[in-house]
Amino acid sequence: MKLFIEPTRKEWSEITKRPTFDNSHLESIIQPVLDQIKLHGDKAVLDFTEKFDVVRLNNLLVTSEEFEQSTDEVSEALKSAIDLAIKNITIFHTAQKENFTPVETMSGVTCWRESRAIEKVGLYIPGGTAPLFSTILMLAIPAKIAGCSEIVLCTPPNKLGQIHPAIRYAAYKVGVSKLVKAGGSQAIAAMAFGTESVPKVYKIFGPGNQFVTAAKQMVNKLGVSIDMPAGPSEVQVIADDNAIASFVASDLLSQAEHGVDSQVILVCSSVSKANEVLEEVRVQLELLPRKEMAAKALENSKTIVLASFEDTVDFTNAYAPEHLIIQTDNYHNYIERIVNAGSVFLGAFTPESAGDYASGTNHTLPTNGYARSYSGVSLDSFIKKITFQEITQSGLKKLGPAIELMAEAEQLYAHKNAVTLRLKHV
Amino acid sequence: MKLFIEPTRKEWSEITKRPTFDNSHLESIIQPVLDQIKLHGDKAVLDFTEKFDVVRLNNLLVTSEEFEQSTDEVSEALKSAIDLAIKNITIFHTAQKENFTPVETMSGVTCWRESRAIEKVGLYIPGGTAPLFSTILMLAIPAKIAGCSEIVLCTPPNKLGQIHPAIRYAAYKVGVSKLVKAGGSQAIAAMAFGTESVPKVYKIFGPGNQFVTAAKQMVNKLGVSIDMPAGPSEVQVIADDNAIASFVASDLLSQAEHGVDSQVILVCSSVSKANEVLEEVRVQLELLPRKEMAAKALENSKTIVLASFEDTVDFTNAYAPEHLIIQTDNYHNYIERIVNAGSVFLGAFTPESAGDYASGTNHTLPTNGYARSYSGVSLDSFIKKITFQEITQSGLKKLGPAIELMAEAEQLYAHKNAVTLRLKHV
Repeated sequence: MKLFIEPTRKEWSEITKRPTFDNSHLESIIQPVLDQIKLHGDKAVLDFTEKFDVVRLNNLLVTSEEFEQSTDEVSEALKSAIDLAIKNITIFHTAQKENFTPVETMSGVTCWRESRAIEKVGLYIPGGTAPLFSTILMLAIPAKIAGCSEIVLCTPPNKLGQIHPAIRYAAYKVGVSKLVKAGGSQAIAAMAFGTESVPKVYKIFGPGNQFVTAAKQMVNKLGVSIDMPAGPSEVQVIADDNAIASFVASDLLSQAEHGVDSQVILVCSSVSKANEVLEEVRVQLELLPRKEMAAKALENSKTIVLASFEDTVDFTNAYAPEHLIIQTDNYHNYIERIVNAGSVFLGAFTPESAGDYASGTNHTLPTNGYARSYSGVSLDSFIKKITFQEITQSGLKKLGPAIELMAEAEQLYAHKNAVTLRLKHV
Repeated sequence: MKLFIEPTRKEWSEITKRPTFDNSHLESIIQPVLDQIKLHGDKAVLDFTEKFDVVRLNNLLVTSEEFEQSTDEVSEALKSAIDLAIKNITIFHTAQKENFTPVETMSGVTCWRESRAIEKVGLYIPGGTAPLFSTILMLAIPAKIAGCSEIVLCTPPNKLGQIHPAIRYAAYKVGVSKLVKAGGSQAIAAMAFGTESVPKVYKIFGPGNQFVTAAKQMVNKLGVSIDMPAGPSEVQVIADDNAIASFVASDLLSQAEHGVDSQVILVCSSVSKANEVLEEVRVQLELLPRKEMAAKALENSKTIVLASFEDTVDFTNAYAPEHLIIQTDNYHNYIERIVNAGSVFLGAFTPESAGDYASGTNHTLPTNGYARSYSGVSLDSFIKKITFQEITQSGLKKLGPAIELMAEAEQLYAHKNAVTLRLKHV
């Protein structure tokens, strides 16, 4: 990890800079996939799955038998853990429901908002050796609470055409309506355009490799919403001199093990604490199965020594981390000062992995500095808010003349006339 | 207007289809503008303004004198109208503030969200003959209520290098921090990259021509958020046999006068009512200054006769209109059934122009079917929600084992270790 001791504010912009990614060179590879799936539906999805995932499927959808079998294939201990996570995530996201009271902005002019679920949503879960079932909980639970009527989940099958039991179990428990054996840009295209088996959805969520990310951007331009722009996962840990070095090191490594492009930032109040943490990182790293990947990620990581509280706050807001862990005695003082971050973990016994899995908060969060303008996924992500208004005759009598004047000043005479005609009736 | 009498549901998908727009051919024209402004800042903005707006400015920013003079240049009547609109918009958007209560998802595990303003936002208002000051109110008022510390507004100057007094007045009244005399893609680039005079912003809002829309899409790919995808404005009016034809006609024309690509849809419960409304449209059209434009928009517009309530509801949700006006005796029955719409106007005395200007609701709304997955602009659009969590030692003792199991199943051993190490301490 590169060490910066009390860097000047001018140097911060360089330190907080992320690597830039340009997926546009993938567009020419992905475009034919989109075109074929739009034209040939299921057949094209099956063909691309054979080509990219090296398995010929007969059917894209997980059957109800495959769903039910998962309850026997997953250990009781893991099922209980998943069930606990479901409970906590459900509690936290249910508490996000809003009730809107109508507002009488002036007598006779009543305005309000109402929430409506996005009717059809699509979720994507990457493949690979590990079954990333936790992301299913993070996306499908709020979708279900919102009331989305169609929740489609795509994930690539293994070489035997199967989906990992933990993924089937999680999807089954949280009420996914269709689990599709498809990955990559072909999965995104199937959900964007719809096929015989896969319903067309209005919004697509979830992480993925560069092909998935680029395909999401491409269908976004065609009218399908997406959750947020994707980038490598990030953590920033703030540690004061009383922070327990082994805890801090374990949190840094949690991030580093995600991938070689993971972003890890450590902000320490002293050089001695920084050295203590870095020594712990070296010790713990040796024991990790994903040691090489984590070591690679750590090469690009940065340790910054900042003694002052003000500098630490300002640096953090300038970086706008996806995850922020604050292991300091005065962590409560930070709360109101943090303005740019995805999710914040307070105190020594709140590791990021709690929020990644089971505390109840969502783990789909803005990376790459997007925390300056984006929130993480929440119940809101699955909802639209429609405004309603109702004006009485006496309300329009009071409000109408202002509308007429403003419409005339904007040279929109039909807008004015819509009021004038009504006022004549009053 | 094309007439469809009781079309089958199969025919709906054709009727509800919007024209598609592809701005990608503009990218090669806009890219050099982005490049130059990134490199040369103010100087490039001034040069492009000279080229495209045919005026050489000395200074990009409206001065405090120009702001103050606006109070003398705008009529008292218009100022009062704007002030009333400001009052109502402020009331409605202030009521959107949320207070989040911490949730104890399980004993010792406390999670909550807090709202933070997006610190720097950029607003765009198009130029042209009419000063579209109402959009300033719709964007800057919620930005101010949210607490955005920097609110930049760009709008093109006239040939004398001036900004219309009504725009200066509105911007002054609602607390715009910088009013920039720049339009088109050069304005979007200035806000996206920042220049000597124009602060770099994190999110850009507002309507514009195809260059502005394309430039917003391009800077969005570079990391700047945007409000929503843009498309031509739309209205759908539902009229039953008791609807007052002249009111309905005036609402259709309000939409049609926006531009030749405006989308106008009339759903009537009978052919006779449809004919009555269309006759009124012909009469009122003759009197409009923007008659030719409105007539052109009406050529592409559609009248659909649907007798049944269920069909009318389902058709409306299939179309997902930006604006929906319901002039029927039973309009209250529609409220809970409308799931896809931007803003809904209920009853005979609630014209769309009320919401466009002064009732309090926002007029920046999802077009082009985006109401299926997007909300209109609201206080939320200027806010991010950060999640916080704090876990006690006893809380982690209860929650920790589930995290360890799930992390292990996902083969993320450092995630597991972050909990294991802490549990050893407890």
